[in-house]
This record gives sequence, C-alpha cells and structure tokens, in this order.
Amino acid sequence: MAEIRVDGARLWDSLMEMGRIGATPKGGVGRLALTDLDKQARDLFVRWCEAAGCAVRVDRMGNIFARRAGTDDSLAPVMTGSHLDSQPLGGRFDGAYGVLAGLEVVRALNDAGAATRAPLDVVAWTDEEGARFKAGMMGSGVFAGLQDLEAALANPDPDGRTMGAELARIGYAGAEPVGGMEIAAFFEAHIEQGPVLEAEGIPVGVVLGGQGQRCFRVTVTGEEGHAGTLPMDRRKDALLGAARMIAALNGVAFAHEPHPVITVGALQVRPNSPNTIPGQAVFTIDSRHPDDGTLATVAADMRAACEDIAAEAGLEVALEQTTSRGTVAFDETCIAAVRAAAERLGTPHRDIYSGAGHDACNLALIAPTAMIFVPCEKGISHNEAENAKPEDLAAGCDVLLQVMVERAGAAG
Amino acid sequence: MAEIRVDGARLWDSLMEMGRIGATPKGGVGRLALTDLDKQARDLFVRWCEAAGCAVRVDRMGNIFARRAGTDDSLAPVMTGSHLDSQPLGGRFDGAYGVLAGLEVVRALNDAGAATRAPLDVVAWTDEEGARFKAGMMGSGVFAGLQDLEAALANPDPDGRTMGAELARIGYAGAEPVGGMEIAAFFEAHIEQGPVLEAEGIPVGVVLGGQGQRCFRVTVTGEEGHAGTLPMDRRKDALLGAARMIAALNGVAFAHEPHPVITVGALQVRPNSPNTIPGQAVFTIDSRHPDDGTLATVAADMRAACEDIAAEAGLEVALEQTTSRGTVAFDETCIAAVRAAAERLGTPHRDIYSGAGHDACNLALIAPTAMIFVPCEKGISHNEAENAKPEDLAAGCDVLLQVMVERAGAAG
Repeated sequence: MAEIRVDGARLWDSLMEMGRIGATPKGGVGRLALTDLDKQARDLFVRWCEAAGCAVRVDRMGNIFARRAGTDDSLAPVMTGSHLDSQPLGGRFDGAYGVLAGLEVVRALNDAGAATRAPLDVVAWTDEEGARFKAGMMGSGVFAGLQDLEAALANPDPDGRTMGAELARIGYAGAEPVGGMEIAAFFEAHIEQGPVLEAEGIPVGVVLGGQGQRCFRVTVTGEEGHAGTLPMDRRKDALLGAARMIAALNGVAFAHEPHPVITVGALQVRPNSPNTIPGQAVFTIDSRHPDDGTLATVAADMRAACEDIAAEAGLEVALEQTTSRGTVAFDETCIAAVRAAAERLGTPHRDIYSGAGHDACNLALIAPTAMIFVPCEKGISHNEAENAKPEDLAAGCDVLLQVMVERAGAAG
Repeated sequence: MAEIRVDGARLWDSLMEMGRIGATPKGGVGRLALTDLDKQARDLFVRWCEAAGCAVRVDRMGNIFARRAGTDDSLAPVMTGSHLDSQPLGGRFDGAYGVLAGLEVVRALNDAGAATRAPLDVVAWTDEEGARFKAGMMGSGVFAGLQDLEAALANPDPDGRTMGAELARIGYAGAEPVGGMEIAAFFEAHIEQGPVLEAEGIPVGVVLGGQGQRCFRVTVTGEEGHAGTLPMDRRKDALLGAARMIAALNGVAFAHEPHPVITVGALQVRPNSPNTIPGQAVFTIDSRHPDDGTLATVAADMRAACEDIAAEAGLEVALEQTTSRGTVAFDETCIAAVRAAAERLGTPHRDIYSGAGHDACNLALIAPTAMIFVPCEKGISHNEAENAKPEDLAAGCDVLLQVMVERAGAAG
C-alpha cells in the first residue's frame, strides 16, 4: 500500500468547510469547547466519518472515536486525531488539521480499497484549548488517566456551567468509559505553530517530543511615591525593578545552548498611574526546554537574577512556580516510522521539538506515540491569521497514512 | 505684630474636624470636587470664616473668598489659600492645610486684636485635584485666565455631569466674576508631598518655584508569537523592548545633575497573556526638572534612548508628548519674605522646588506669589496614610502669618 496517496484537495476542502463553523471576520475560527458551534463541528465530523463507513462511539468525556474496521478487530487500534475546539480568536488548522487528516487517511484507504489488519481510530478529543474551562487537554488527559473524570465533568466555565452539563446539553455526554483501552500507537498531525519549518522550506517535522515547561508568577514590591516630589535616589520603583528583571531573564535564555524559550507575557503594575511611582509589579515567566536538567538550571538562574536585582534596588521579590511539566519524549519506534515514511515519500523533513502542549503529550503516557508537524505561515497560531499551504497539509497527511498503515499492518 | 503666634492646637483641631468630612477607614479623606462631601467641607469653612468676622463671597467657578477687612479696603488684598477637594483616597492635609492655615492667620490676628492696612483674603479654590473632572487646578486656572470659564463649567465628570451643573446643585455657583481683581501677593502653605524636609529635620521649605514637566506616551510595537514555539532569536518582544527602555530612562535621570525626576508609572501590555510574546507595550513617562533647558535636553535624551533600543531590537516605537508645562519661578520678593520670616522666627528652613503642581503655580502668572512647605510623614501624599506633625503645621502657619501681615502692612 506504499503507493496510496491522500487527496490533498479533499483534505483542504474539508478543512475549509469545517472552518466555516464559527468563522471569524478575519478568516479564523472561534469555536470554544462544548458550545453550539463545537456541537456543529462534532456533528459534521461524525456525519463525514459515518459516510466513510466508520463506526462512531463517544465516551463520557465527549471524546469521539471513529473506527475503520481492520481485518482482525481483536487487535489494538492504531489511533490518530487531535481536537475541533479553538481559541476565541483562533485559526482553521490548529487541531482541525489533525482530526481531518485522520479522516482523509480513512477516505484515501477506502478509495484504494485497502484494508489493514488492526482497526484504525480517528479521534476528536474534547477541550484541548482550555480557553473556556479552566484547564486544557482535558479529554485526552482524562483518557490517559492524568485527571479524574468526575472532577473534569464538574469543571465550570466562567458562567458556572460545568463540562458535564454542557456535554449533555450538546448531546455528547457519551456512554463509553473513558480510556482503559489498549492502543497500538497514537500519531497526531498538527501545524508547527512556530516558524522553523517554513523558514527552512521543510514540509514535515519529525517531532521528537514536547519541551518541559516551568512557569512562575513574580511579584516585585517597592514603595509608591509621588512622581514629582520623590528624588530619584530615594525611590523603590517596583516597575523599574521588574524591567531590569525582564531584561536579565532574556539574558538567561541566551546564556544556555540550545536556548530555552523564556517569555514574560503578562505584567500588571499597581497602581498603574502616570504620576505615581509603581509600588508593585507582578509578571509571569514561561520557560521551556527539551531537557529537564537544563530547565532546572534555567529556573535557578532566573531566580538568582531576579533576587540579585531586587536586593540591589531595595525591593522585595517573590517567585511562585505555577506550572511544572516535565519533558515528553515520544516513542523511538514511532519517531523512526515517521522519519522513514517521509524518506520513502521523498519529503524533506527535520527533527523538531514541540514547543506547545498537544493531546499527543498525554497519549504518550499510555501508548507508543509520535507527532507529524507541517509548516504554518510565519509560525502564527492562536490567531485568526493562522494559515497553512494545501501541499504541506497533504504532505503531512501522506506521512500519517504511511505510518498508520505500517503500524496496523497491510491486509491483502 | 512680630510677636503674634498662631494657635497650633486650634489649627490641628480644625484640620481634624475638616478631615471627618469624607473620612476613609484608613485615616484619609475621599472628598471629590463638587460632591455632597465637598459641599459639607465648603459649608464648614464658610461657617468658620463668618464666625471669624470675614465677609464671604463666591465666584462663578465656585472659588470661595473670605475677606478679613483691612484699615484701607481700597488696597489690593493679600491672599492665601489652597483647596478643600481631595483625591479619591487622599489625605487630610493636602490642600486643607493651606485653607485652614489661612483661617488660623485670621483667627490669630483676631485674638491679638491686630489690624492690617490691606485686607486679607483666604481662598478655597475649586477642584485642584482633577480626580473627578478631566483637568486639575481648575478654579485657580480660570481665575488666572489660563482657562475659559464657560469651557470649564461645561467640563463633564465620567457620568456626564458638568462642573457648572454640580456647582449649582451644591449651591456654590456664585455670582462674582472670576478673576480680574488686583492681588497684592499670594502665599500658599502646603505639605511638601515629598521626603526632603522630613529627612533633613527642617520644618519649613522656602519654595522657589515649580518644576517644569513633560509627559509622554510611548508605544512599542513588536510581533505577537507563541511562547513555546518561537525561537528566542526570531522574537520581536514589545515588553522586552519596553523593559530595556524603562531601565535606560532611569539612566537618563542619573546622567543629569541635579537629577530630573523621571517616572514610568503606567504600563499596558497586549495581549497580556502568559503564553504569548507581547506584541505591544504602551507606557507613560513623567519627567520634571526646575530648569526648562535641562528638561528639553532630558526629553531629547529619552527619545534617543527609546529609539536606539527599538532599532536594535527590530521594534517600532512612537513617543507622543502628552503634557508640557514650563517651570514656574515664584516672585523674588515673596520668596525673600518667606525666608526672612523663618529667620526671624528662628525656624530652620531650606530652599526647595515644588515637584507637584499647585494653585500657586497658576496665581504666579497674575500676582507676586510664593509657597511655604512643611514636612509630611515619609513624604507620602495622595494616600490615606498622609500625615504631618502639629508643630510643623504650626511653624509653617506662623511664617504665613508673618509674611501676610508684612505684605498687608501693620495698622496701629
């Protein structure tokens, strides 16, 4: 079956049709988890899967599994998929590509009349984005045993509506148990959400794993004062201290090779008045690196940098760790299969780490897992301007078909 | 009349009684201009002035003038005063001290049975703080011809209620024309609102003038990106650029002698999300110095520093000047009179510039003017914790009495 290719135009058309559900004026999608729009997207996916001959089942977390039968359904399925929910102002490809690439694999195999020994499951995981409820990657998280089902279902949105109630409301509170099934392998196709592949003109990224992540909330406390009357040498300016820390944290990133990514994304100043010297500044740090040991060193360096600056300026500083995720290493055999498939297809590829979290990072805890990245325009994601090229999306989908068929075994 | 002294305890008691109007839980006052609380404060002041034998008149801006007659009322009055309105969470002394010190001068002269040749006016200016309506120093501004009366009366608060309507509502839309009267001299007593006098243990500041002020809004524009996926060397981080600018602006202050005060008090980050590289940062600069030429050089240095940092980081930066006030030099003879009075009284004193704006800065445009500062605790003002010592308040008030009597001329 090495000669079977996906239909890139059909994949593109499906992405565009899915993208009309929750379409935003600037060409993106706003399809928050478990809203009416999410229901519409789910319904369309289910309709397409059933039309492609799949048997659809839904578990209690609302995860949707569309199964293309194998010749031996006693074998554990080879699974692929991603998510259909989006950020409030998100793009058409983040998540939807991974789900519809799985559907396109099924359709292409149908067209070729090709059977696999093990069944294939195409899955749409519930609430990957975490934009509406408190946490992200919920559906795959409960599936992988990371989170408790009942706690997840009780999780409220800002209006107090729980995931469980909203799943029931949109008709996706399924009867199936969540997880506990054997999976031969899990592959997830996704846009890179970064600029590396596009910049290098490489259509396929062989994802080695996910970076570890440590996040902090840093509170710098000084003393408020009158901007006109307090002499410079008597000030304890919390924002000035925070500014020096932000510059120093950037220096910490460049002091390690390969560079971790260190981001100060959010900052609040108090009282935030033009003629008052700031008494407090609170900012976030997001640090990520593919190596846990480096990440720990980076965290120590960041803390030291902030504390040194505070001590010098007579400020108080407190660093509170808010997130700590270890690195995720994908399965060697799955990674090798992705790389080999790209080779066979003559598709340029490179190894890459995932900077973002994905459902595959949860699945990696319970099944041999790997991911396939494709370029997106300027690396932009979580943005209405998110875009990708049809030929790159098809190239990634062709690799997905190859590794799924290989893992499931060709039959006949 | 050189032997007449004010009654420090009576001054303190009056300040404490006034401070009960709009008292806040932490010992401050919240008495926004032209509210019911402002009306209560005005009523109390008028009652006290009338009890002290003054004739009270109110002009169309609601400025209240309490006149103690002289022996020759054809002479221009010697005027003193400040304001009774406060910040939302302000202190008991900012403004109220200057008004009630004027009243105490009248009371002390009454007790001594002392007459002056020229009349004395004690004034409470309308809306000095600018906390409720758009601009501050409104009453004295219109009085000094800086602002148009009708425009000022049409000035709305955030709920759309105009100064004119609110003046009428609280019964302080007077009939008198605003300004246009001859004034022999204007003296304003005020807490320093800075730490210098307290730190040096000096009860009286001889105010030479007001610093010039230039304010800017700085907009730094970069590119948003994903905190996990965009490599460090591809980022255009607007907050990082702003942080470097804030540190550099502090350096500009220390590069000039005497130091200007340079404050970045407010900063907004967009989108201000922990896992998104900031695409934009907007911050304010407030710069002040007693010399206009230095202030202009500082402004040029600040602009160059911001533009250099932006160019180096591939960011856009725009500096928009939002305020430009020239320095105010008080009248040499009035300054000398304050200094000489402190000498005569044996009160330690030092020359000082005002970092904040005051009604006296407006009056200086139309009359010989000076100010008398007294220490406040830790230099804290515009804050419920604002505090001052009874003996310092009395010392400043004694200087005020001396200079007013000297200027008005002793009679009998």
